[in-house]
Amino acid sequence: MELLKDRILKDGIVKEGDILKVDSFLNHQIDIALYDLIGAEFKRLFQGKNINKILTIEASGIGLACITAQHFRVPVVFAKKSQSMNLEGEVYVTSVYSYTHRKTYDVLVEKKFLKESDNILIIDDFLARGNALLGLIDIVRQSGATLSGAGIAIEKGFQEGGAIVRRMGVDVKSLAIIESMKDGKITFRS
Amino acid sequence: MELLKDRILKDGIVKEGDILKVDSFLNHQIDIALYDLIGAEFKRLFQGKNINKILTIEASGIGLACITAQHFRVPVVFAKKSQSMNLEGEVYVTSVYSYTHRKTYDVLVEKKFLKESDNILIIDDFLARGNALLGLIDIVRQSGATLSGAGIAIEKGFQEGGAIVRRMGVDVKSLAIIESMKDGKITFRS
Repeated sequence: MELLKDRILKDGIVKEGDILKVDSFLNHQIDIALYDLIGAEFKRLFQGKNINKILTIEASGIGLACITAQHFRVPVVFAKKSQSMNLEGEVYVTSVYSYTHRKTYDVLVEKKFLKESDNILIIDDFLARGNALLGLIDIVRQSGATLSGAGIAIEKGFQEGGAIVRRMGVDVKSLAIIESMKDGKITFRS
Repeated sequence: MELLKDRILKDGIVKEGDILKVDSFLNHQIDIALYDLIGAEFKRLFQGKNINKILTIEASGIGLACITAQHFRVPVVFAKKSQSMNLEGEVYVTSVYSYTHRKTYDVLVEKKFLKESDNILIIDDFLARGNALLGLIDIVRQSGATLSGAGIAIEKGFQEGGAIVRRMGVDVKSLAIIESMKDGKITFRS
């Protein structure tokens, strides 16, 4: 998606340790018009798949999942990162290690919100080492629902997450795949 | 907002300890069409206020803030609940105690995303004791921006948050204010 790539080149900031900061438009401050265009693109890429629910993980995936869900006219379910008092009853649980926060979270979805008959599209803002996405895939598998694909805004193609998940047979579509950020220069996979 | 009240009566579940579970449509599974109607109502209630930015707090406020922002055609900024490796530079910080998770979080917004010239609308899904909202108000005050109001989907009117924040002079508009949940029966403030 050229528009997203252009925006990354314009406003993305490369930091030491392969960190790409896109928090002026994607995941701290949010350009809602851009989200809407990303949502429309996911709809185009996954049309005809009969998706009836979008799954994401808190926190920064939620906004993009909601805007994307408007294009599909389906509900969103977001996985929660820690056991909260209000999450009781039967839940699907998986463990996700966050490199950003350097700790492991339990990630939960109440069982009643994912059914065997569901046809799920996973949406997230970022794919790097793949831990969050693998956690969501595990939850979909536990539920017996069909996983129709995963729509990602930005993928760090030089980290292993995308390759791992594609080898599992998941239809991952990333709108901007970064091949390299060497010396602060961002190049995309063509 | 009658439609939201009806939905609370239909799908809300009252649990011991004054807990209202609305996670089938508001904050775990999300009914996006309902969010869109809530966003339109916030636009109606705060029109003419020249709002140029919506502020919320992760996690469950983000979706509603994004859908609402479409009606205002403005960006969203969401406050982050913990220090992350990627949040560097100058930040506004405040402390928020979460009764749900029984712990105190640092809540942060990067300074560059809130300017003195900004005219802010705070959006959140819930208002109970008011801790999250007070934290966001504190961050707006630190930034010197104008706070035009706070739009809340569901307020627990029998807890003190709404009264505290209104006494501070903040224009809080809650679409459903619950007066009582005694014996599992929900009654709304009229």
